[in-house]
Amino acid sequence: MVPERAVILAAGLGTRLGTLTEETPKGLLKVAGREILYRSMKILQDLGVKEFIIITNRKYEKKFREFLERNNFKAQIVINEHPERGNGYSLYLARDKVKDRFLLFMSDHIYGREFLQEAVKGEGLIVDRNPKYVDIEEATKVKVRDNHVEDIGKHLKEFHGVDTGFFVLTPEIFSIAEEILSEREVIELSDVVKRAKLRVTFVDGLFWTDVDVPEDIKKARDLIVKTSVKGVGDGFISRYLNRKISTRISALLVDHISPNQITVITFLLGIFSALLNFVSIPLAGIMYQISSILDGVDGEIARASMRTSKFGGYVDSIMDRYVDFTFLLTLAYVTINEPLWWAVVGAAIFGSVMVSYSTECYRAVYGRSIYEDIPEMRYLIGKRDERAFLTMLFCLIGEIKALFALLAVLTHLRVALTVWLVWKKKGS
Amino acid sequence: MVPERAVILAAGLGTRLGTLTEETPKGLLKVAGREILYRSMKILQDLGVKEFIIITNRKYEKKFREFLERNNFKAQIVINEHPERGNGYSLYLARDKVKDRFLLFMSDHIYGREFLQEAVKGEGLIVDRNPKYVDIEEATKVKVRDNHVEDIGKHLKEFHGVDTGFFVLTPEIFSIAEEILSEREVIELSDVVKRAKLRVTFVDGLFWTDVDVPEDIKKARDLIVKTSVKGVGDGFISRYLNRKISTRISALLVDHISPNQITVITFLLGIFSALLNFVSIPLAGIMYQISSILDGVDGEIARASMRTSKFGGYVDSIMDRYVDFTFLLTLAYVTINEPLWWAVVGAAIFGSVMVSYSTECYRAVYGRSIYEDIPEMRYLIGKRDERAFLTMLFCLIGEIKALFALLAVLTHLRVALTVWLVWKKKGS
Repeated sequence: MVPERAVILAAGLGTRLGTLTEETPKGLLKVAGREILYRSMKILQDLGVKEFIIITNRKYEKKFREFLERNNFKAQIVINEHPERGNGYSLYLARDKVKDRFLLFMSDHIYGREFLQEAVKGEGLIVDRNPKYVDIEEATKVKVRDNHVEDIGKHLKEFHGVDTGFFVLTPEIFSIAEEILSEREVIELSDVVKRAKLRVTFVDGLFWTDVDVPEDIKKARDLIVKTSVKGVGDGFISRYLNRKISTRISALLVDHISPNQITVITFLLGIFSALLNFVSIPLAGIMYQISSILDGVDGEIARASMRTSKFGGYVDSIMDRYVDFTFLLTLAYVTINEPLWWAVVGAAIFGSVMVSYSTECYRAVYGRSIYEDIPEMRYLIGKRDERAFLTMLFCLIGEIKALFALLAVLTHLRVALTVWLVWKKKGS
Repeated sequence: MVPERAVILAAGLGTRLGTLTEETPKGLLKVAGREILYRSMKILQDLGVKEFIIITNRKYEKKFREFLERNNFKAQIVINEHPERGNGYSLYLARDKVKDRFLLFMSDHIYGREFLQEAVKGEGLIVDRNPKYVDIEEATKVKVRDNHVEDIGKHLKEFHGVDTGFFVLTPEIFSIAEEILSEREVIELSDVVKRAKLRVTFVDGLFWTDVDVPEDIKKARDLIVKTSVKGVGDGFISRYLNRKISTRISALLVDHISPNQITVITFLLGIFSALLNFVSIPLAGIMYQISSILDGVDGEIARASMRTSKFGGYVDSIMDRYVDFTFLLTLAYVTINEPLWWAVVGAAIFGSVMVSYSTECYRAVYGRSIYEDIPEMRYLIGKRDERAFLTMLFCLIGEIKALFALLAVLTHLRVALTVWLVWKKKGS
């Protein structure tokens, strides 16, 4: 069972980010279009967390209240009037708000979904023995003995892993904090952890990082965008060419533009490339390939900024069909006269839709992606990215009839193979 | 909770069906391509019944064993060596096989899914106050007082409903049967029901019937086929013309042909209608409309004979697209020369697929039929049945260019309206 409550420590004054955090607490800085805290809270909510308790200071209170209201999170705010007393003291202030097992995490850490899925099942301090996305020098190290914390600190000589800033705790932790508070004024979380000899759970090698200096935000953004590629169902051209470019564009745009805006722009660019056939076929071909590259950006931005929408996917899929159709039709219109060749054009246009139809119809009937159910599908060529690339090549060399003949064969062959693979896998 | 066991009474010698039941027990007669008993058992299995106990006589034993093996039902057979002692005695023979609440029903009754869904939730004897599909004259009537059976019999003057032959019982019923058996040799179920003053549950007006004379089988078959029309997603032409014809064809064919065979025949007929364009366009148009009518038959037969398959639906949907495409392409090929009109043809062909694409893609993304989620969709014209009918009309009057222009507008208008409705309903 995932604990129902999560305590978030956000009372630190975050001096290292300079002017960035003059006004905005670290947890509310946007990374890839979303506040750091939005990411953790949204995923944890999906995983079953019912309420959040945010410990912050007087200065940031208003910002946090606005953030919670804007995003409709169920949360309480507890004010630490003495942030200088350390984050152990912040934790202690949550003592009346939680009765059962609870989560604790740092507001300035970015956690990926996979990390959180594992972490919430753990116990005690979550430690990463293979931290891929943090600067080890700067990280807090943990020395473990018999599955419990033996020592913790930035400068340990000998250690087993790195403190991820994520905990699964019981209220007993508060009495330990109280014990230390009876001895001194300032206490850090690491003091409590060490005194408690906290149990350790290892979650290794998954995406999480913390934000200390401005470059961290950019690095995190690029990582998030790169891991936002859906991938499954990508053709060869997508995998080895388009995605390399589109993810860079997405990283540049993710903070400035919405997925829907990009969908519309890509669509207009596609239609524009079709009209370019009346002016110059090679130019049109190149522009068509560019629009095919941009076609990945809306999905990447949507996933990276946690703004995916079913309607977005639905409309995007229909718009893609219209772009392909318009391009092939105008291309045929300016080059082809004979009815026989028009029949080939008809077959090519129809086949281009049928490639998507045979895929979507599978998901409609069987309820799952065909690429997940039938891995062999990934090796069939004829997907949109590949067709767009081929189209550009043939436009550049001016062999338009050959293009249509190729598309007419390629697409229907792909559909036939798709049906065959479905039959082989699913029987009749 | 649905009881885990169901007792089936099938020891009667069924003389009224004449030669039909010389060899085959009534419950194993096929109605709409499936044994009567297969229908009840399959649906009850879906509803949660784990095991069946079939009480039959020595003569039918082998037939039942073969039936169970063929269909992989989990069942025991209990032999009633004295079927002449009545069906109350048959029930009594099940006494060692059931410990908890159990279902009891007659092997020669056909029950629809809706009826069974309600009946399994009931208690005691299931009584129908509005029996639509049985001959009241011949039915066993039930007089009810305070929710319990007061009297039961074929010739009651005053009664509240009709005995459906379906019961939800507890093992107490066996001691009542035993009590009567200590008094006499022959006992009918109705004797036991009356002595027990069995509790009554009303399930009114849903499909169930019993099979007594050969005409009952034909009547039941027609009813099952008629209620097997999927309906949701049918266009106007389908509803008011095609289905009226296709259900009759289905009723004639359901016992003789498999859904897959019909799918292939319909596809070949569609392609044949397309090729007819080279010979005579009006003839081709008529044949295309005929193939559009037949297009409903595979689904009807599949549902009526409980042989639906996802793969069947998948392939059928793709084949339909190919028939439409081939027809429009050959029609255009024999009539149209100018590139401008070919562009219109391209738009019409593309639009015809996009109507289905925008529908299937919805189901792929949202996981439900667009017609269930957005009822307004039913009033949009442009579906396949309507397009096929329009095509036939225009082929008959020879206005082929007008047809393509109309299809080019109609289909894309429908797609645009579909997207708009989805947006209105589902937001962005």
